[in-house]
Parts: sequence; C-alpha cells; structure tokens
Amino acid sequence: MSKRTYAILGTGALGGFYGARLQKAGLNVHFLLRSDYEHVSKNGITIESVDGDFRLPQVNAYCDVGNMPRCDVVVIALKTTQNHLLPKMLPPVVKDDGIVLVLQNGLGVEEEVAQIVGSDKVIGGLCFLCSNKVEPGHICHLDYGQITLGEYGANYYPAGITERIRQIGEDFESAGILIEFTEDLLLARWKKLVWNIPYNGLSVILNATTAELMANVHTRTLVEQIMYEIAAGAKSCTRMISDSFIQTMLDYTVKMKPYRTSMKIDYDERRPLEVEAIFGNPLRMAQVAGVNLPQITCLYQQLKFLDGKHRGE
Amino acid sequence: MSKRTYAILGTGALGGFYGARLQKAGLNVHFLLRSDYEHVSKNGITIESVDGDFRLPQVNAYCDVGNMPRCDVVVIALKTTQNHLLPKMLPPVVKDDGIVLVLQNGLGVEEEVAQIVGSDKVIGGLCFLCSNKVEPGHICHLDYGQITLGEYGANYYPAGITERIRQIGEDFESAGILIEFTEDLLLARWKKLVWNIPYNGLSVILNATTAELMANVHTRTLVEQIMYEIAAGAKSCTRMISDSFIQTMLDYTVKMKPYRTSMKIDYDERRPLEVEAIFGNPLRMAQVAGVNLPQITCLYQQLKFLDGKHRGE
Repeated sequence: MSKRTYAILGTGALGGFYGARLQKAGLNVHFLLRSDYEHVSKNGITIESVDGDFRLPQVNAYCDVGNMPRCDVVVIALKTTQNHLLPKMLPPVVKDDGIVLVLQNGLGVEEEVAQIVGSDKVIGGLCFLCSNKVEPGHICHLDYGQITLGEYGANYYPAGITERIRQIGEDFESAGILIEFTEDLLLARWKKLVWNIPYNGLSVILNATTAELMANVHTRTLVEQIMYEIAAGAKSCTRMISDSFIQTMLDYTVKMKPYRTSMKIDYDERRPLEVEAIFGNPLRMAQVAGVNLPQITCLYQQLKFLDGKHRGE
Repeated sequence: MSKRTYAILGTGALGGFYGARLQKAGLNVHFLLRSDYEHVSKNGITIESVDGDFRLPQVNAYCDVGNMPRCDVVVIALKTTQNHLLPKMLPPVVKDDGIVLVLQNGLGVEEEVAQIVGSDKVIGGLCFLCSNKVEPGHICHLDYGQITLGEYGANYYPAGITERIRQIGEDFESAGILIEFTEDLLLARWKKLVWNIPYNGLSVILNATTAELMANVHTRTLVEQIMYEIAAGAKSCTRMISDSFIQTMLDYTVKMKPYRTSMKIDYDERRPLEVEAIFGNPLRMAQVAGVNLPQITCLYQQLKFLDGKHRGE
C-alpha cells in the first residue's frame, strides 16, 4: 500500500470523485473545500457511479489551506477560473519533495504552476471524465474516468515517462482509475483540445448538444475546420496532429449519445467559463510562434462576450 | 411629372414604404402582396413616419403577378430568401424597355436577376432605411431612408452613372427620398457589407444589440477583425475599402443609439434569415478568387445552424 499523502484542491465533480476513489482505496487524502466545507466535514462524500455507488462518511475536510498537512501529491482540481488563487494556495501544502498534479482543462496551466513551485515539481493529467456535483458532497459519475499522466518539462520539453509518474499512476490504478502515460504532455493537451475547443465553444454559443452540431452539415463542417486550426496551433508548437486523428474524433462524436459539454453545463449554471485556459492560452501560444487561428479567435471573443454578460460586465 | 409606372414586388417594411411614397408623389404604382393582399386592397396603406404620417386609402394591389400591368420600373423589395420565385415572377411584369431595380441586401443579387431579364435591364439600389411593418398595410418608418443607386454592368463591371438611373433617382427624389449615385455598384455593396456582416451576424448569434457589441472589448475587436476580412473579400474582387472607412463605421456605430439589426428582428420573429445573400454570396465570390475568409465563414455556418433550427431542420 502506497504511503503517499494526497491533497485535493477543489472538491467538486472531478476532485471529489478522484479523491474519494483514492481514499476508498486506502490512501491518505485531504480535501480542500469552500462552500461545501461544512456539509462535507459533517456528512462526508457520496459517490453515485456507473462503476458502483459508495459513501465515505468521514473525510479530512479543510476550508483553509493553512490547516492542511503538507502532502506528497497535491492535486489541482479547481476550475482554471480559480487559478489566481494558486500562488497563495499551493506553497503551504506541497512537501519539499512533493509533486503537484494539474488535473485541469486547457493549455499552459502547468507553466503557471511551475512558476509557483518550480518546474521539477509539476506533472500534468488529462481527465476523460463525465461527472456532476448534484449537491454538496454528492457526486454523480456518469461515464469514463481515465487519466493520461505526463511529466512537465520546462517549456513543455517532452520529459519521458518517469518512475514518479508511474508510482502516482499506480495509486490511481489501485483506486480503479484507468491510467495511461504520455511522453509529451503538450502534444496530449493539444490533442484533447481538438475535441474540447469546437464542442465546448459551439455548444455554448449555439445552445446545442454535440449531436445537434454533428447533424447539421454547416456546424459539422465548422467543427472540422476548427479542428484543423487546432492542428495548425499544435504545429506552431512543433507538435503534429494527424488528419486521421481529427477524423477519428469526428466519427467518435457522431457515435456518442447526445452530450451536453462541461462548458455548456457551466454556462447553464451561470458559472464562469474556462475561456482563457481552453481558448485564450492556445491562441497566445500559437501567436507567439507567429500563427493566427482566426476561427478559434472568433469563438474566443464570442465566449468572452457571453461569459462577461453572465457576470454583468 | 414622370410618367414612369412602378411595380413593387414585396410590399413589406421596405417596398411598402418606398412604393407608398412614390404613389403619394403622384406616380403610378402597382403593389404585389401575398398574405396582406386582402387587407391592403380593402384598406390601402398607412405610413407612420418620422418625416410625417400619411395614408393611401386606395392602392393598386395584386396577389398574382399575372394580373399586373407591365411596368417601366420593377422594384424587387422581397427578402432575398424569396428569390427562388423571381424566375416566374419577373418576366410578366417588366416592359420590353423596362428596368428592374434590385433593392435587396447582400451581394450578387443583380447577377441572379440579370440571368432572368438580361443584364442591360438591371440596376441596383442600396437602402439605408429603418422601418418595420407593424401590421398588414401599416408601416412604421423610424429613421433614414436614403438610397444609393448604381447601374449593373455584366459581371459587376463599373457602368458609370447613366441617364436612366438619374431619371429614376428623380422619381424617388420627387417622393422625398434622398438619392445618391455610385459608379461602382459592387464596391458600394461590399462597403455596405462592412456594417451588415458583423452586426447582423453577431447580433443574432450572441443575442445582442449593436451597443452591447461595441461596449465589450472582445466583440468590438471581433467586429473590427471581421470588417478587415470584408475588405479582403472586396480586394479579391479588385475593390478597395480603406482602413479609414472601417474606422468610420466603428465610430459611427458607437455613436448610434442601441440598435436591433434587421437580421435580429427577422430571427426574433422566426422569419428566415438572409444568410446566403449577406454571408454566403460574398464568401463564394472571394472563394472564386482564391481568398478564404475564415471568420465570416464561421459566422455563416453558425447562422445556417440557427436558421435551420428555427425552421425545424
């Protein structure tokens, strides 16, 4: 049994799910919460899951990072819209030889975290998870759950598959989470954007499910054009995404059941949208390399408008 | 007093307004209607206008083009979404030496009409008019009204300012309509698109007024980028739109009172949108010249999706 201690920063649909699974597998897990703190410290966490329901009547809950123990692995499971809190939140909770695992959407987040804790402490994870928080401490896991882990090398230089990410992978596998490894975190993140950018963006802008977007010849064409722009963005970072990968994503989405994207759920719930991490950062990364991505720029600006309107800007 | 006879095809907010003004000035005008035919043939047309209200108790109303006399000037005032009707509608109503005046939005419509009646019979007009049909035969004229007239030369070759468009201009001026002339109809149409494409498109897609689009830094930037794409489209047709024209359009829109665009009104009323004339035709014209306009393409595909959804596609 691993002796590694875990801190979960952000105990929502994602952090709550993975943290609860780790604790259920016998690991020592510490949960940071905000609005749900009182409820969870009294009642624990309930997971309703396609893989089997379970309840943790007692968890180590905190509302202040200053009260948490320093941990071996600090999992960032906040929405990226909260990342302005990280410079104060992270340092007190990471052991000197600890690791920060970034389980967030989008691009460039590891770079931000590296500026706080040093790039040798950072690894990234891409979650393929479909879950919702239905009420405080109550998470509904609908589908998937796999994580792709990758080392963060300074400036996203591919850093290979190290012993330490294998160990963290084993902890998650012991908790029943399917784990894959990538030698090139930046490539993996760009590939995930091939799905995330068109479907998250257009589902919000056009108030549509993935099935509706794929059933209409015009939006289906637009989705494909945007995917090719993402490949151009990846190429500007010397990462190659093949045409066949794009075709696979399109075919896969056609076969999926109608899906309300996570950004659409955030929008419908009037929560802030992760526009900067998912759209802004890729645009800026390509821009630095002198590459313009006009259709993604268009979605970015449309989403910034809609997000701002929701927040009364 | 001019002896020219006028046929108005499409007696809505635009055709009804201009046709009523021409009749009030003493011209012989014939109105084609569809759903409002019975009402207007019984009750005539009422104009509520910033320039003064008036009523025409009796007008020459028709529901079938076959019953109309052949006219000297046939004014196409239908929405472009009805243009599939023109091949049957136009020939019976145009005199052998008559003229067809296209008062529609967008690009390329004169070309379609030329294929029906021959390019020597076609002239174009760009209307800057703010009016609504509030009920059958009742039009509310809110602002503006100016028309820019231009000859159509085959393939939009600039055809100069001819005697015949001066005469038609005089008819409209006698009816109190401000008239300007352009030597280059295609350039004038591209310039009008500089306003029409970004504001009509984004107002529908983002459910926004012009004021909201200009108040947000992201959509304001997007509007400007789209305007520069239109200039690139015009350039692909060897027409030049200056940066200062674009800046003037932006400044002018900032100073306007908050405005619900005509496409937004159509969308809110669940009427078909003029996506092909305003977006599709410019895209195709640039495409033929090998020029890709990615942001306008994005708006086009988004609008086709929204328009299709309204029509239950």
